Parts: sequence; C-alpha cells; structure tokens
Amino acid sequence: MSASYLRRGLDRPAVFELFARHLPPNRDWLLAAGLGPSLRLITELRFGPEQLAYLGSIGFEDEFCDYLSGFRFSGNVDAMPEGTLCFAAEPLVRVTAPRIEAQLVETLLLNQINFQTMIATKAARVALAAGGGEPGAAASVIDFSPRRDHGIDAAMKVARSAAVAGVEGTSNVAAAMRYGLEAVGTMAHSYVLSFESEPQAFRAFLEDHPERGVLLVDTYDSLRGVENAAAAARETGVPLAGIRLDSGDLLELSRGARRLLDEAGLAETRIAASGDLEERRICELVAAGAPIDLWGVGTDLGTSRDSPVVNGVYKLVADAGPAGGWRDVAKHSPDKATVGGAKQVHRRIDGGRMAGDTIVAAEEEAPGEALLVPAVRKGEIVRREQLASVRARATDQLRALPDALRLPEPGAHPEPYPVELSPMLARRAGLSSAPG
Amino acid sequence: MSASYLRRGLDRPAVFELFARHLPPNRDWLLAAGLGPSLRLITELRFGPEQLAYLGSIGFEDEFCDYLSGFRFSGNVDAMPEGTLCFAAEPLVRVTAPRIEAQLVETLLLNQINFQTMIATKAARVALAAGGGEPGAAASVIDFSPRRDHGIDAAMKVARSAAVAGVEGTSNVAAAMRYGLEAVGTMAHSYVLSFESEPQAFRAFLEDHPERGVLLVDTYDSLRGVENAAAAARETGVPLAGIRLDSGDLLELSRGARRLLDEAGLAETRIAASGDLEERRICELVAAGAPIDLWGVGTDLGTSRDSPVVNGVYKLVADAGPAGGWRDVAKHSPDKATVGGAKQVHRRIDGGRMAGDTIVAAEEEAPGEALLVPAVRKGEIVRREQLASVRARATDQLRALPDALRLPEPGAHPEPYPVELSPMLARRAGLSSAPG
Repeated sequence: MSASYLRRGLDRPAVFELFARHLPPNRDWLLAAGLGPSLRLITELRFGPEQLAYLGSIGFEDEFCDYLSGFRFSGNVDAMPEGTLCFAAEPLVRVTAPRIEAQLVETLLLNQINFQTMIATKAARVALAAGGGEPGAAASVIDFSPRRDHGIDAAMKVARSAAVAGVEGTSNVAAAMRYGLEAVGTMAHSYVLSFESEPQAFRAFLEDHPERGVLLVDTYDSLRGVENAAAAARETGVPLAGIRLDSGDLLELSRGARRLLDEAGLAETRIAASGDLEERRICELVAAGAPIDLWGVGTDLGTSRDSPVVNGVYKLVADAGPAGGWRDVAKHSPDKATVGGAKQVHRRIDGGRMAGDTIVAAEEEAPGEALLVPAVRKGEIVRREQLASVRARATDQLRALPDALRLPEPGAHPEPYPVELSPMLARRAGLSSAPG
Repeated sequence: MSASYLRRGLDRPAVFELFARHLPPNRDWLLAAGLGPSLRLITELRFGPEQLAYLGSIGFEDEFCDYLSGFRFSGNVDAMPEGTLCFAAEPLVRVTAPRIEAQLVETLLLNQINFQTMIATKAARVALAAGGGEPGAAASVIDFSPRRDHGIDAAMKVARSAAVAGVEGTSNVAAAMRYGLEAVGTMAHSYVLSFESEPQAFRAFLEDHPERGVLLVDTYDSLRGVENAAAAARETGVPLAGIRLDSGDLLELSRGARRLLDEAGLAETRIAASGDLEERRICELVAAGAPIDLWGVGTDLGTSRDSPVVNGVYKLVADAGPAGGWRDVAKHSPDKATVGGAKQVHRRIDGGRMAGDTIVAAEEEAPGEALLVPAVRKGEIVRREQLASVRARATDQLRALPDALRLPEPGAHPEPYPVELSPMLARRAGLSSAPG
C-alpha cells in the first residue's frame, strides 16, 4: 500500500484513529496502557540496509526502498494517557501524519496498545478483587506471570502494564530493574526438595535471607509446613516475613496458617497465596474473609485468560485533499462501519464520579475534560510520563468509576457506562443513537 | 534460591523436567515448539555489570554476584524436537546441570516453550480445519496476527511457531525476513478509502502490484466489489491474483464471488477470507463447501483464544548426592505430585499410526522410538534444526495421529491418546495406573 501511495504521490496528511469497536467479553471498561513503549517505537522506527535489501529481494522498487531508507515519523499523535479508563468506540490514539507514515506505524501501535491495555485492565481487575471491589489494594498483588507470558518482551510489558494498574511487585527481576518495580520472590518446591527435610530447608533459607524469608509450605503438608516454618524462625532467630500457600483449600489453609502463626507469636508474618489464582477466586476468598495478605497471580495476569483479546483497530478517518482541505472518510462494511472525521473524547465528572463520555469532532467545544492530549508533535515526543504518575491516574480513575462497573459478578449485566456521539458526529455518521 | 545454594555448596548436578500436568481445555494433543529459541537463550545467558550492580543494590551478596559474572550454562539438555506431538505428563525438556544453572534457566525455558507450543498447536489445528481435518492444508493459512500478538517479539515467535505447524505465509514482513517465510499482504480498507472510488483504487493497486494484487472487496459492498475487481483486471490487463472477503456471510459471499469471477473468465483468481476466523468457523465453511482458497487468521492464531494457556511446569526430579550417586526427588503436594527420576518417552507406531506412548525411566530399555534426544551437551548446542525439517516432522506426526484426535467436534470426548508409565516408574511413583 505504501509503495503504491508513494508512486502516486498519495502522501498528503491523513488521520487514523485506534479504537475498539466493542468491549471484550467479561469487560465493562478498559484501562489504557502501552502508549509509552509505542511512542518510543514509532519515533525510533528506521529501515536499515539489511531490511531494505530484503524488501528489494521480494519485489519492492528502488524508489520505495529509497523512501524507507530516510524514513522517520514526522507526524503528530494525540492519545489518552496511560492509566485512563476508556470504552468502546472511543479513540485511544489519533495519528495525524503523511499517509505513508501513518500507515507504516499501524501494526506497531495495534501490537503494543491492544496487548498492554488488555493486561493493565486485567491487572486492575485482579487488584480490585484483592481489595474486595475497592481500589487501592494493588500493593497486595504480585506479578508471577513470566512462565506463562508470550516471550521475554511480553513478560517485561506484562510487568509494566500491571504497574500501570498499580501492581508493582513482580517475580520478574529484569522488569523490576528496568521499570523500577519491586522484585519479589519466595522459594520453589525444588528448594525444599534440595534438602534432607523441610525444617532443614526452612532454616537454611531464613539464615540466607534474614530480611525477606517467605517460606513455601506445601511441598509435603501445608499446615505441618507452617509449623515447621514457625519452628525455623524460632530456631534461627530470624523473623519470618511470610509463608506461601500454593495448593489445596486456600480458605481453610489460610485460616489454619493464621491461627498457627498467631499462636507462635508470629502475628506480623504475612500469608501469601498462589496457584492458578484468578479474580473470581480472589473475590470469593476475600468475601469469605480468608486471612491472605499477598496474592501471587501468574497465568491469569499474563494472559487475561477470561478475556484474552482487546480488539482495537486502526482506521483512516480523514485525509487532506490536493487543495489542502480535510475530507472525512468512513467505511461502510456490514457491522464494521466507522464514523469519519478526527475525534476527541470528553468526560463529565459528577460528585467525583464519572458521569458519561461524549465522543465529539476534534474541533468541537464540549463540556468536561478532553481525554486525548498531545503526545507527539512533528515526530518528537512531547509527553513522557513516569510510571508513578500513570499509576496515580489509574487509581484516581478507578475510584471515580461507578461502583456497579468496578467488578460485576459473572453473569451480571450492569447498565453500561454512557458513551454518546455529539449531535454533530451523530449527524455526520447518519446515526441517531450512541455507538454499541 | 540460587544464592542460598551457592553459599551452602549445593551445586551438584540435578535433573529438572519440563512437562504439562494436564492438557489444556479443548486440546487433545500439543505440538512441541520453542526449543530452538530456548536453546539459544539458555546457552547465551550472561549477567553484565549493570545487572550485577542492580542485584547488589537489592541485597544480593558479592559472592553470588561474582558467581553470576562468570555464569555460562555448562549442562546437558535432552528434549523432544520441535514439531513433535506430545501429551500430558510427558517431559518435553530435561535439563541435567549443576543445580544453580538448572534453576537459573527455568523461567526462560517455561516462558519460551509454553507459549510457542501453545501457538504451534493452535496453528496446526487451524491448518487441519482448513484441510477439512486432513493434514497438508497449512499452505492455505496465513498468519494475520501481529496486531493482536503480545508485543513485537511475540509476533516474531507466533510466525515462527505457526511455521513449525506448516503455516508459512505471514503478514509479518520482519518475521518472513528472519525465518525465511513467505511475506503475504493484501490491502486495507484505508487503501480503498484513499481513492475517489473503489474502481479507481483497484486499478491503481493492480497497476502497482502486477504480480501480487489481492483486492479487498468489502469496503462498500462485497459482491459489487468483486465486480469492480474483475473490471479493474480487465481494464488494466493485470491478472487478478485474488480477492479478499473480510465481513458478512462468508459462505454466501464466497459462492457469489466465485460465480462472478468464473463468469468474468477469472477461474484462476483465488478467494481469500479473513475477519475473526477461528478453527470452528473454518471447519463449518469447509464442510459447507465454501470456495475459499486462503484463510487469513489473526487473533485466534496469535492468542489461541479458545485455549490460551499451556500450563507447563519445571520440576526437580533427581539430584546427585555428596557421594555422587543419584537420588530421585518427588513432590507430594495435593494434586501436584510429581514422579521422581529422569525420564524418557517411547512411542509405538502401528500401521503408520501412533499407537501409544510409555513414559519410562531414562535408563530403561523400551520398545518404540525414544522422543527425547540430545540437544545440548556441556553447554554446547548439539542439535540445530532448519524450520523445514521441523515442519516436515510436524506434518508426518499429524498424519500419524489417530483420526479421532485430529480435530474433534466441540463437546466430543474421544478416547484420550494412551500414555502410560512403565512398570518401573509406576512402582517408583507408588501408582498403579497411568497419569491423568
């Protein structure tokens, strides 16, 4: 497509928007993530000699390869900052650039934003579950996902996306180093099995980790393991930071463990749980009052197994004509129609709570906060955010989300969050109602 | 754990095995993949000054950081070659190495093998669907997944894993370049919308791509689009390689498109389909006789949405005592018990079909082919395979798989493929029956 555009001089500015047509199953909102890594990728995108030789070898003309050899994204990006709650049909990213540039960054943007938004959303839900539906419990969740993530880069981005949602403890030490997160580890069963007996293993681990000893107690029998852990703490004189339960009935076992620890004078020792933990199971355990302080979540955090796809698309919505004026562009395929024109999203807040969003034409005035903000101007990143400020935004937004939408029961169908088109956009789209 | 092992001199050889305790939902077999990239990662694993400084800053002692500064995997790996069909409880990878080394490569191995095996399995199923349940139709499937993959590295590995299963066409040009696959592209709706009319867009694309013009026909109306495509081929004199349907009733539309193309003398023009295609939908369309020649599969290929996790684990099964003899190691946690001792898998073939696997002790003699083969010896890779030979193995193995297991109807529960423990292992495990 780009080669054809170049040959025909079709490289005037165009506007593309990235949005999800529908919310994924089991999701009532999305938590935007992935913008930071995306902006780096698109502003650093270059084509080197090896790539150009390959493209030539599969049939691309010299003229196009010459164009690519000097490629550098020179356009503008407006986007919802990471940690913003968003909904179906709302543009998360808007790219305004010469058509070829806007086209060549499409896959990078979709590849980053779809995935990382999915993970941040899942992590936010897991953290809400750990807090019994209230935001602010993210510190009790730990990313245990690397062994189920889709490669090394995916594991790094899962840790980062979870941190967008406030989950900053991770077993991924490389991610902790790169993103300034907290490296958290306990021990594996193989550690216990590497010693003659569990008491011997526990004593060794506490002696070697006097400040961070969390002992895995289920290699043989969980409650016997808790007793052995308490004994090891007594015998070594090392305070027992925590014990970890990884199998069995976590409600029963956590109660039993808490009782044994308290009886041993270890009221400060924390109880960690892991083992295929998922948001529903965590909700149930929290509701039942399970005395669990830390939740290690792996598979479900890293794969969002109950809703493993955010289906964002990237669509041409406007382009500049030969005379310079803008033309709205829309597609009419069945079930896949798009609304033409560059758009903005305004959010109304009422009494500290999100009251409704309106998708407006980018040039329209509208009440409420405009969610898309300048991120790149003329190819330069103009907005760089620390993870700490992203996390603060996510926490604020989750606090402002209507209660009914935070973490509905499975099968519950709360009233969807209101998102409407402005009258101007609705007329333009030939629609009289809000997007589905 | 490793720091503790080092401090205590617990670095004698140990054996770890990677296996899935259970097959994932909706899966009757797995197609092993990811070994090639894994072996590179574990043999190239090093710790640099920046990493060591970080580890020191979070509390690791100098002695351990010194150890890591000279780290280099020196052990042995035995593994099922990529493209091998495998089942629950069967070790896919066996690592024999000093305990610390074997421990430090755990997450890398799990991160690579779980993900890539999941994708290769899914790609094999999609290709079977395209072939109406018969192997050999993989060439009609194209990887359209990058926009839904979990980052750039994941997109590369999805393309590679799909190629393990025989799917060698990909829209991922970078992966085509790296792995020697076929770069396949059509056009997007935005291309059509970039012109004044669909006929004008189609003529332009054919003129600019005289050898690979596949026209997307559903921007306005699919069958009208097919007519416009045929007219564009006639007017430009460029043979129409294909048209792509991306929405609507694909059975109805593919029939209508075939008729229109045939009437226009374009019997050679191929029909490609895309748009949230999934193995079940492909099965239905193939069974109904839809005249679709190429299947572009994105989301479901890249995320394996109907079964998004392969739950492989990595377990200590044996270690060397101070006197040098080997000791079997097993874990007894509820539902998570392991069988101790280094293992091998033997497969019996009967009349060209797979007749049953036996998991045996590594030192046992047994009939049938031994599936785990030497991959690394003393830290050096001793087995490097071209994708072509991996693909040939996968095709052979899928041909040998019992028909009932190839692609069962949803809800069907065919007799599972027989996998049993050898009598020696069963005794060792205290089990009298096969693993679940």
